[in-house]
Amino acid sequence: MTQLEYARRGVITEKMKIAAQSEGVAPEFIRDGIAAGTIVICHNIKHLNGTPLPVGTGLRTKINANIGSSSDDTDMQKELEKARVAVKYGADAIMDLSTGGPVDEIRRAVVAETNACIGSVPLYQAALDAVRVKKKAIVDMTVDDIFAGIIKHAEDGVDFITVHCGVTRSTVERMKNEGRIMDVVSRGGAFTIEWMAYNNQDNPLFEHFDKLLEITKEYDMTLSLGDGFRPGCLADATDRAQIHELILLGELTQRAQAAGVQVMIEGPGHVPLQQIQANILLQKRLCHGAPFYVLGPLVTDIAPGYDHITCAIGGAIAAAAGADFLCYVTPSEHLRLPDVQDVRDGVIASRIAAHAGDIAKGVKGAMNKDIQMAKCRKKLDWEGQYSLALDPERARTLRESSPVSDHGACTMCGEFCAYKVMDDAMARQAAS
Amino acid sequence: MTQLEYARRGVITEKMKIAAQSEGVAPEFIRDGIAAGTIVICHNIKHLNGTPLPVGTGLRTKINANIGSSSDDTDMQKELEKARVAVKYGADAIMDLSTGGPVDEIRRAVVAETNACIGSVPLYQAALDAVRVKKKAIVDMTVDDIFAGIIKHAEDGVDFITVHCGVTRSTVERMKNEGRIMDVVSRGGAFTIEWMAYNNQDNPLFEHFDKLLEITKEYDMTLSLGDGFRPGCLADATDRAQIHELILLGELTQRAQAAGVQVMIEGPGHVPLQQIQANILLQKRLCHGAPFYVLGPLVTDIAPGYDHITCAIGGAIAAAAGADFLCYVTPSEHLRLPDVQDVRDGVIASRIAAHAGDIAKGVKGAMNKDIQMAKCRKKLDWEGQYSLALDPERARTLRESSPVSDHGACTMCGEFCAYKVMDDAMARQAAS
Repeated sequence: MTQLEYARRGVITEKMKIAAQSEGVAPEFIRDGIAAGTIVICHNIKHLNGTPLPVGTGLRTKINANIGSSSDDTDMQKELEKARVAVKYGADAIMDLSTGGPVDEIRRAVVAETNACIGSVPLYQAALDAVRVKKKAIVDMTVDDIFAGIIKHAEDGVDFITVHCGVTRSTVERMKNEGRIMDVVSRGGAFTIEWMAYNNQDNPLFEHFDKLLEITKEYDMTLSLGDGFRPGCLADATDRAQIHELILLGELTQRAQAAGVQVMIEGPGHVPLQQIQANILLQKRLCHGAPFYVLGPLVTDIAPGYDHITCAIGGAIAAAAGADFLCYVTPSEHLRLPDVQDVRDGVIASRIAAHAGDIAKGVKGAMNKDIQMAKCRKKLDWEGQYSLALDPERARTLRESSPVSDHGACTMCGEFCAYKVMDDAMARQAAS
Repeated sequence: MTQLEYARRGVITEKMKIAAQSEGVAPEFIRDGIAAGTIVICHNIKHLNGTPLPVGTGLRTKINANIGSSSDDTDMQKELEKARVAVKYGADAIMDLSTGGPVDEIRRAVVAETNACIGSVPLYQAALDAVRVKKKAIVDMTVDDIFAGIIKHAEDGVDFITVHCGVTRSTVERMKNEGRIMDVVSRGGAFTIEWMAYNNQDNPLFEHFDKLLEITKEYDMTLSLGDGFRPGCLADATDRAQIHELILLGELTQRAQAAGVQVMIEGPGHVPLQQIQANILLQKRLCHGAPFYVLGPLVTDIAPGYDHITCAIGGAIAAAAGADFLCYVTPSEHLRLPDVQDVRDGVIASRIAAHAGDIAKGVKGAMNKDIQMAKCRKKLDWEGQYSLALDPERARTLRESSPVSDHGACTMCGEFCAYKVMDDAMARQAAS
């Protein structure tokens, strides 16, 4: 039985207890959320070294780091180092999106490397197998190839899979009529559209959705219903292709939940700041409260090299508005495959966004560390500040790079540190 | 006559025309905004090499970079390099907050170095002169010293000055009754409070506000009414000390405007995300629409080393809600005096925030570059992308650090680039 089926019968499982403890909530809260479809626990029963990851309403906002090789950069050791760094700096989940080199070995090594929750896009597997193993083109994938890829990932212990089931003839037609600047920027979406055009058939993951449910149910994998029409630029955001796909994903959510399969929904991409709240509201309403897993959103298109920041802005607003799970973006987005430093920068930026969002939406205890940090700042307790920092090493490195004189403050204000001046003033007032 | 006095008489000045052209609005719009107090043009009549900077409702959100020496780091050349880098990467204004070394020489050199708008906090001058020239303590400043510092800055061509006029006995009392964690973190606020406690007098800049108006009017300097009670941590935000000070600043705004002096208001610091909109609304209402110059806001306390990101999140939300002018924060905030790289990172982060906010609040033409960027992305036109990027050098460096094979995309997706796959799919559909 899946966690959803247990929850519906009123059973509190071991995974629900672990999730409840990690969140500081009652196990009943987790169980009831799962039963209602507003919480999922991402954990494949085959992922023996994995930590069950609860995602959804009322819980801490989670963050995911995408890693993975490409045809231009196939170094497995670099990807494993990215996985370690992502987890070290606080990623809750890692998606292995490898499309170059020994992708099966990379995926298995990534699963083995950490205890993090693991996601993937199995369609890449089928596309690669068609191109590399069968020496054909992406469009030559068969429906069996696509499902074989999914089973392979399930067997390897992947906890959640992105499937672009809402990319259908009707949504493609809507997109073409609308006239987008960037069309489709999702790789899975693009592969599907090319396949449909060549084979003159609708999307097999939509057509054979029940088969997909059977497979995922067997492993209790969480279905992450992907947004093939996620906007690739601000001008394309919140258009009819995106929203029509979301309606379809909401309908598929109901079918999956009825079959006992846990579901979350993927969303945004590039979205102007003033449209983010509406995007969250639409997803929550159209998908009946299913957890929302959001890429970015990036609030401008003109900051290549700094898209961890454009993503942190959008992600914080999205989390505050109810997004449950943020996918990071690194400084190298749109420019190159990220390196290890990019992964660290991307993870920290997303943690900032998730944390700011958690404070805003009132997640229990979210402000505790901020309050402790403020107290350490006031006392000029530097070790205390480092220990509370999201990245203690970087905080220490920056301060220690700029030697202070004997005032105990930092070199920003030197002897005129406002904290010290205020201490003097308050002592003077108290004495007078 | 000041720009405000001209505007009230219906006159469109040369500076208003320059401002209108740089904003792409009608000169009448600038004139009427100045007359209404919702727009200021920051420009001291003595700042012969300076560019008049329009700030306010309906205009592009501006950004400021703080630079300046401290008692631990007095290198003038480094500060001049920061000024150049700040302007190169898009700062509209530079505040010289030097409190160490040859501060008069630094200020004059900073004014001469670029054409940017210049701000300062003249109280630091008086405090330093008391400590260093008179060999006394901050508390030994006389009222004349304080005004002498203001005149010195005015004579040097400073375009706007921060004055903490709202730090009074009544606001200090309110803060003490409330019980803050961080008390006062503004240096000008702390100096003032220590002075008041020692001298048993109220704030001279509040008591002698008319004298302040006389001086600023003579140079048409813009008064930037400082927030001595700006919250230093999330827990202290939007409390009665902060809001009471804002009420006082609103009253002083009316007095200044009645005297023909241009005014803007300074605000935030550390503010939880969900309180930012309310802070902007309160300022706009309590200060009758005067332009709002906002530090940060920083949306969490626990990210030292990354406060340019916590600031960009808050700044974008503030700008979207109506803030007119953002003060950057660098990665070194809370840890050390920023270096030159910090200035670049801080300026770019604030530009991202301001730009995202401008798109959200509908500033005319704000989306143009985003649309052009999207078109260049779709075409894989890399030179076009670099030329549109906020930081072209960094975009180029990242991409070129990761050599691509002959597919023309980038190493992120390699041969499986979604743009290319989609082009194939659309061509296939068009042909069929």
